[in-house]
Amino acid sequence: MAGGDAPRSVDLGFAVVDVDRERRQGLAEVVYAPGKTPAQIGAIVTTLLAAHDGPVLVSRIEGDAATEVARALPGATHHADARLLAWRPRVADETAIRVTVVAAGTSDRPVAREAAAVSGVLGHAVTEIHDVGVAGIHRLLDRVPRLQQADVVVVVAGMEGALASAVAGLVEVPVVAVPTSTGYGAAFEGVTALLAMLSSCSAGVTVVNIDSGFTAALAAHRLTRAIRRRRPSG
Amino acid sequence: MAGGDAPRSVDLGFAVVDVDRERRQGLAEVVYAPGKTPAQIGAIVTTLLAAHDGPVLVSRIEGDAATEVARALPGATHHADARLLAWRPRVADETAIRVTVVAAGTSDRPVAREAAAVSGVLGHAVTEIHDVGVAGIHRLLDRVPRLQQADVVVVVAGMEGALASAVAGLVEVPVVAVPTSTGYGAAFEGVTALLAMLSSCSAGVTVVNIDSGFTAALAAHRLTRAIRRRRPSG
Amino acid sequence: MAGGDAPRSVDLGFAVVDVDRERRQGLAEVVYAPGKTPAQIGAIVTTLLAAHDGPVLVSRIEGDAATEVARALPGATHHADARLLAWRPRVADETAIRVTVVAAGTSDRPVAREAAAVSGVLGHAVTEIHDVGVAGIHRLLDRVPRLQQADVVVVVAGMEGALASAVAGLVEVPVVAVPTSTGYGAAFEGVTALLAMLSSCSAGVTVVNIDSGFTAALAAHRLTRAIRRRRPSG
Amino acid sequence: MAGGDAPRSVDLGFAVVDVDRERRQGLAEVVYAPGKTPAQIGAIVTTLLAAHDGPVLVSRIEGDAATEVARALPGATHHADARLLAWRPRVADETAIRVTVVAAGTSDRPVAREAAAVSGVLGHAVTEIHDVGVAGIHRLLDRVPRLQQADVVVVVAGMEGALASAVAGLVEVPVVAVPTSTGYGAAFEGVTALLAMLSSCSAGVTVVNIDSGFTAALAAHRLTRAIRRRRPSG
Amino acid sequence: MAGGDAPRSVDLGFAVVDVDRERRQGLAEVVYAPGKTPAQIGAIVTTLLAAHDGPVLVSRIEGDAATEVARALPGATHHADARLLAWRPRVADETAIRVTVVAAGTSDRPVAREAAAVSGVLGHAVTEIHDVGVAGIHRLLDRVPRLQQADVVVVVAGMEGALASAVAGLVEVPVVAVPTSTGYGAAFEGVTALLAMLSSCSAGVTVVNIDSGFTAALAAHRLTRAIRRRRPSG
Amino acid sequence: MAGGDAPRSVDLGFAVVDVDRERRQGLAEVVYAPGKTPAQIGAIVTTLLAAHDGPVLVSRIEGDAATEVARALPGATHHADARLLAWRPRVADETAIRVTVVAAGTSDRPVAREAAAVSGVLGHAVTEIHDVGVAGIHRLLDRVPRLQQADVVVVVAGMEGALASAVAGLVEVPVVAVPTSTGYGAAFEGVTALLAMLSSCSAGVTVVNIDSGFTAALAAHRLTRAIRRRRPSG
Amino acid sequence: MAGGDAPRSVDLGFAVVDVDRERRQGLAEVVYAPGKTPAQIGAIVTTLLAAHDGPVLVSRIEGDAATEVARALPGATHHADARLLAWRPRVADETAIRVTVVAAGTSDRPVAREAAAVSGVLGHAVTEIHDVGVAGIHRLLDRVPRLQQADVVVVVAGMEGALASAVAGLVEVPVVAVPTSTGYGAAFEGVTALLAMLSSCSAGVTVVNIDSGFTAALAAHRLTRAIRRRRPSG
Amino acid sequence: MAGGDAPRSVDLGFAVVDVDRERRQGLAEVVYAPGKTPAQIGAIVTTLLAAHDGPVLVSRIEGDAATEVARALPGATHHADARLLAWRPRVADETAIRVTVVAAGTSDRPVAREAAAVSGVLGHAVTEIHDVGVAGIHRLLDRVPRLQQADVVVVVAGMEGALASAVAGLVEVPVVAVPTSTGYGAAFEGVTALLAMLSSCSAGVTVVNIDSGFTAALAAHRLTRAIRRRRPSG
Repeated sequence: MAGGDAPRSVDLGFAVVDVDRERRQGLAEVVYAPGKTPAQIGAIVTTLLAAHDGPVLVSRIEGDAATEVARALPGATHHADARLLAWRPRVADETAIRVTVVAAGTSDRPVAREAAAVSGVLGHAVTEIHDVGVAGIHRLLDRVPRLQQADVVVVVAGMEGALASAVAGLVEVPVVAVPTSTGYGAAFEGVTALLAMLSSCSAGVTVVNIDSGFTAALAAHRLTRAIRRRRPSG
Repeated sequence: MAGGDAPRSVDLGFAVVDVDRERRQGLAEVVYAPGKTPAQIGAIVTTLLAAHDGPVLVSRIEGDAATEVARALPGATHHADARLLAWRPRVADETAIRVTVVAAGTSDRPVAREAAAVSGVLGHAVTEIHDVGVAGIHRLLDRVPRLQQADVVVVVAGMEGALASAVAGLVEVPVVAVPTSTGYGAAFEGVTALLAMLSSCSAGVTVVNIDSGFTAALAAHRLTRAIRRRRPSG
Repeated sequence: MAGGDAPRSVDLGFAVVDVDRERRQGLAEVVYAPGKTPAQIGAIVTTLLAAHDGPVLVSRIEGDAATEVARALPGATHHADARLLAWRPRVADETAIRVTVVAAGTSDRPVAREAAAVSGVLGHAVTEIHDVGVAGIHRLLDRVPRLQQADVVVVVAGMEGALASAVAGLVEVPVVAVPTSTGYGAAFEGVTALLAMLSSCSAGVTVVNIDSGFTAALAAHRLTRAIRRRRPSG
Repeated sequence: MAGGDAPRSVDLGFAVVDVDRERRQGLAEVVYAPGKTPAQIGAIVTTLLAAHDGPVLVSRIEGDAATEVARALPGATHHADARLLAWRPRVADETAIRVTVVAAGTSDRPVAREAAAVSGVLGHAVTEIHDVGVAGIHRLLDRVPRLQQADVVVVVAGMEGALASAVAGLVEVPVVAVPTSTGYGAAFEGVTALLAMLSSCSAGVTVVNIDSGFTAALAAHRLTRAIRRRRPSG
Repeated sequence: MAGGDAPRSVDLGFAVVDVDRERRQGLAEVVYAPGKTPAQIGAIVTTLLAAHDGPVLVSRIEGDAATEVARALPGATHHADARLLAWRPRVADETAIRVTVVAAGTSDRPVAREAAAVSGVLGHAVTEIHDVGVAGIHRLLDRVPRLQQADVVVVVAGMEGALASAVAGLVEVPVVAVPTSTGYGAAFEGVTALLAMLSSCSAGVTVVNIDSGFTAALAAHRLTRAIRRRRPSG
Repeated sequence: MAGGDAPRSVDLGFAVVDVDRERRQGLAEVVYAPGKTPAQIGAIVTTLLAAHDGPVLVSRIEGDAATEVARALPGATHHADARLLAWRPRVADETAIRVTVVAAGTSDRPVAREAAAVSGVLGHAVTEIHDVGVAGIHRLLDRVPRLQQADVVVVVAGMEGALASAVAGLVEVPVVAVPTSTGYGAAFEGVTALLAMLSSCSAGVTVVNIDSGFTAALAAHRLTRAIRRRRPSG
Repeated sequence: MAGGDAPRSVDLGFAVVDVDRERRQGLAEVVYAPGKTPAQIGAIVTTLLAAHDGPVLVSRIEGDAATEVARALPGATHHADARLLAWRPRVADETAIRVTVVAAGTSDRPVAREAAAVSGVLGHAVTEIHDVGVAGIHRLLDRVPRLQQADVVVVVAGMEGALASAVAGLVEVPVVAVPTSTGYGAAFEGVTALLAMLSSCSAGVTVVNIDSGFTAALAAHRLTRAIRRRRPSG
Repeated sequence: MAGGDAPRSVDLGFAVVDVDRERRQGLAEVVYAPGKTPAQIGAIVTTLLAAHDGPVLVSRIEGDAATEVARALPGATHHADARLLAWRPRVADETAIRVTVVAAGTSDRPVAREAAAVSGVLGHAVTEIHDVGVAGIHRLLDRVPRLQQADVVVVVAGMEGALASAVAGLVEVPVVAVPTSTGYGAAFEGVTALLAMLSSCSAGVTVVNIDSGFTAALAAHRLTRAIRRRRPSG
């Protein structure tokens, strides 16, 4: 646990771990797995677990590495489809913020799953709605009541990314759009969906990097920090 | 009128006019005004009027040039908002093909007007629906019955261009999408809408160049050629 | 078969199948295989076959997956070179529209085959013309009579995509241009052909996504819906 | 005031006004001025004022047009540096959320002003911090206490856009990054800042379109809708 | 006249004039006018006229500057439509090589004129063919005999640039393709034509910069140097 | 051998072979191997050998395919480093045109070898100069006398492609520049060299597609056609 | 003069002036004029002059604004061709670092002048060499002795930017390359030169933003700080 | 050792080795391994060792090739993580310049290691600081004293590359920024970091190619040549 006099970073040689982040931002540094060995990941997680009280996460970790790290550091939950490893997950209670993740097609599912799994581990009440692209707009319209119960909506879509505009026109709460690399040719690995979401005709949509369900979940988490601060009992 | 032995082109020095096109394609060469003087436009139009029976069009012609050409060559109709000059327009009758032009926002109106005016001059029955972008999807849904009467739908949209996908999911007939340069920043002068329309999740959408209401109208005209050929009396 | 009171979508958990599309658009939702397991594809196809009367298609399916799905769901036709799996194909009769697919080079053949196979399964009368690029323009000119019998022409070309402009100058019916990723360097994986086709000097050409023979076939199919509506008995 | 039986849109011919948006989203449709005449703007504003109870805004309106519209429709407040015209602005009270707008340089000021002015009109408590780019990082660090009082932070920066990452590392609440077209050459009219913000190493940053202070303000406003819903008295 | 001991460059302070180029390359340095004052242009031309025997050229010079320079330095020929000023032009004789310039549309004319005028001043026998784009391919085919008399063909085309491939398939001699900035939207100011020409399916086409009729003429001129060397009396 | 009444193309089903090209252009169609099976290549080569008198070439053919084709069709020469297969190569005699291929670095060697091997097979007298990039400009300057004996120079360079400008400043004959995909990062797979060569400050440089030693050789060949036509005995 | 207890920044409302920079970096913040009024520039300069001992600079200031600011704040030197305004310039003495600015063409002169003028004001011994592009490489080679006397070389070039590679191969000291927006078409407003310089085959070249003679001068200045620190008497 | 009459290059057939570079630039040509066989590398290194007195380096050499070359040519030091092979490394003494390499994240480590290893082999005193990205700015601020001891700072960062601006605001000496290909989506393989660094708001930052730790080290080395020249005993 980081107290007032605790060091703000721990130098492991190959990494300088920011052990002050939970205090500043309510969540420990999340370990991004690509380019790190299981041993390096393990050392960073150990440092983070010792220095914080809340959840510790490893994102974008592939199966074999996840197994190796989880075996070395007991207590991990592995969300394989979200490529996520988590220790000390929070549990949603009746005061939890409601995060709804909406995905346009079945190919967008892995990114949507990452957004949902990270949000769940952080203690939010998550709802997932899959495969409601605008080619059959009635699929989305049939789910408007469920959408309107959300405190925050994460929209995940590739190709032309039109779902973000359609959803943002139907809800009043924050909409975080995640473009995905689904599609081919002129979809340009997600760039088209990214630009389309940034150019949305629906006002107030914000956008994160291509395929980054993780960033959307963290953006939603930041929103929950603001919501909780403003509650009478927050 | 071009007969069997008529020359296929007329060399005016600064231009070689294709006077065989009405025979091949059912419509005379359309004169693209930018870069030509009123005198050059007049000479080409005169040649085309002499060599054909049907409509003769000048596209993208600005006000002053249009006035000058129209004065020199009587019989012209000037559609100022569509930047179009036409001689010998056809009139839609009860067998006319129904072309519906749908535009996302008021800024897309000039491009939509060009598509509509050219279609009208070519003898099609044109319906225009404006300002039905997906940010308020009910505006589009309220007009589905009108949409479904069309034989061909031209969708005009800038920004993220999502309207094309939404419309194509609601009708069974050909959808020609026209991206517009409406918007700023990540809209990239219409490139984002262009790429989004090419990546549409609604199957069978075709796309034309940015701001080219003219090309969409000509594409619709080609469709009418096919429709008429297949009629018992066509 | 979908009746008036039938549900408009079926939720399979991993997918929400739009079972209303045949009613709206005359063709069931086409299953895009990439990113789906054979079991998922099988479940969706089963749902579609139960809810519709007409053809059911799976596009872009690779050999092994195709074999596995076809074995589980009898009645499938497999067009390997077009990566297409189809159930209940229609048969072209004397009222069928004529779809002509023209390809510039032998490398463009797979894309052309997809356009042709999908069109065939949907009941159209398909003609294929291969390897008539503009480097030897006489190859195209020798085939003009065949071209002019078409109701719609699909032009498939990579590299500089010049064939679309040349063909569109020779026929009066709709020309749907499909850029392919053939070529190297400045061909930019089909982007150059895409942009060239969008900038065609031949009026009324429409364009679909890179390598998407499928979209071109669906665009041609939309035309048939318009033709049939306008027939006395349509 | 829009009641249960009120129409959802009003067709003015040149525009279809969505008069249902305040009910759905807590704010009337905002009028985007470019491409509209003062008369058209006036007609839309009149329609919106009649159909809603809350604020009505016109964004990106230039001086002369603003003067003309304001004269015709009394009660307008004109924020010239933010190119904003507003009727019936809300006033921030003690329950207002705190929106802090941080700008990197003096050239980013107009965009920051738009974000601040729109937020102010919508009734939020706005703080502005200008000219704290990372080239002199102490300028930012000296203002951390002020930053940490915010409920949401809007970061406005051009050139390399590094300020967004630095700020997001210092606060726990939502950070909405607005890239600006400040800079030259490799800044590519704001594209570099846009891409840099999307690639931020600070987790949970969301991004809006280039120069769109307006979108950032609306994104902040969506957050307030979520906060209010979760209040006991919300 | 530059002899063996002559200096290879003359330093004018604002410019270092390469007075050795006629000896090395058979043609004096051509003065590129943009960014230079008439006085600077005059000083450079004076230096070049003194140091060489053959033609001296100023390219891309606008009307007023051309008039001023021509008045100060008698003997100039001004080709206004080609933005060219020339002293001591050569005259084509019976041994002159035949340069044929072919342009796709009337908008490509200024670039074609530059190629033709520069070639003419350098003493080549120039033929111009205008407005023979592939939308009406018969216009080109009717001119094949004239094309086949050329020693080198310069093809000038914008939009999709297809004319270069078509011409190169019809002649055996060098084809230098000049993309032009004609067109809009997806033509991207000549980039699409440039990439299309580089990706030509016709073998052996070479390409120069957008709108650079000048470079094409110089490339043709280099060919004449090779031809003359190989003549018995060359 | 193609006579006056010979067919101009032979339809093999999967390919339409242009057997008229030797007559039109002095060289049979060159077979581009990628995407064709050895059997298809063999059938096309057989057709070409039967219909022409001169060399027949297959370009970009990989080792195994080359071995298989060469075994089936005796008489082939295989230039493995140039990925070229040739039948009936011409032999350079004392009237042969001199083609000099200059390469900037050792990584550019394969592309330079393709240009040289194709030129050699077509009967030209080829000289190769390797590894003379501008980082050590004396290496190039030491070879100026050899360079100046060339009738045509092909310059092959990746990275920043500066060698083309340097060489073109030293010779008076045609310079064909070939950008290569050598380099990394900002070299963008050859795009930077391509753009740099197109923007060369040395007048009259022409450019071909990235890595296309083949196109450069064919461009050089076209030059030789022009040179020979103009010889007294040509 | 800023002492130990001096404030590190001064808040002028519209700007937060970093008055600590001379202490940290040996040079006061340079005022970038675009987007600031003459009054704002004057206020910032006044603040900087009061807080520092050394030179104060305003960059990219146009003529009228420069005149107005210089009149209000006496002591300014105006370098009009470099768009630079300076107070308290340093004078080069015998220990001054030698900065040589080399420009490829006369169009690159304004950028080269900015680099030279800023370097001069900062007290360095500046040499300028103009118009020595690689099209006539002897112009550069004739100046090698002068080049080799430099401590730092700034190379300014547009179009293909080849001069940077050539110079860097001839000197052992730091080379800072400045791409310029000189050229047209494929020069892409300086992007081609930028990418070419980043891809230089000459080792150790560093690059700054397009047209930024200012940045190059500041980079050279940083180099002089390092050189002076390491002198025995430094 | 290269004396006055020594040849300036050695032609190995496949390569022309510049053996004059140590004399001109104080360091032998560095061998770039990609695309060369171990035997070719060995031959070039042998040539370089014979012709020079100082260090000889091979960059970007993979493990197996390094082992093979090192075995054939004794005396090599292999820096595996930097992909570097070196003979006759220099040793830093008390006059050595201080090169500090700062990296933003653990994924940037290999590029940082290349910069550090090359600098070390060239005899500089190297300090490495890893994992101090701006998301936790205190990690950087804690190391300012170490940073300020450097003579030159190499900043290595991917994603948004913000570290370069932050560091350059804290030191007065040269800052060479190396963008890395770390990140995904909108990071565009390092392009975003590259553009961001070029657009830095901190004055005087210079930039090298993506992932090129090598170029940064050579740029630092050039600085040492300038420093040594200016020393009394230099």
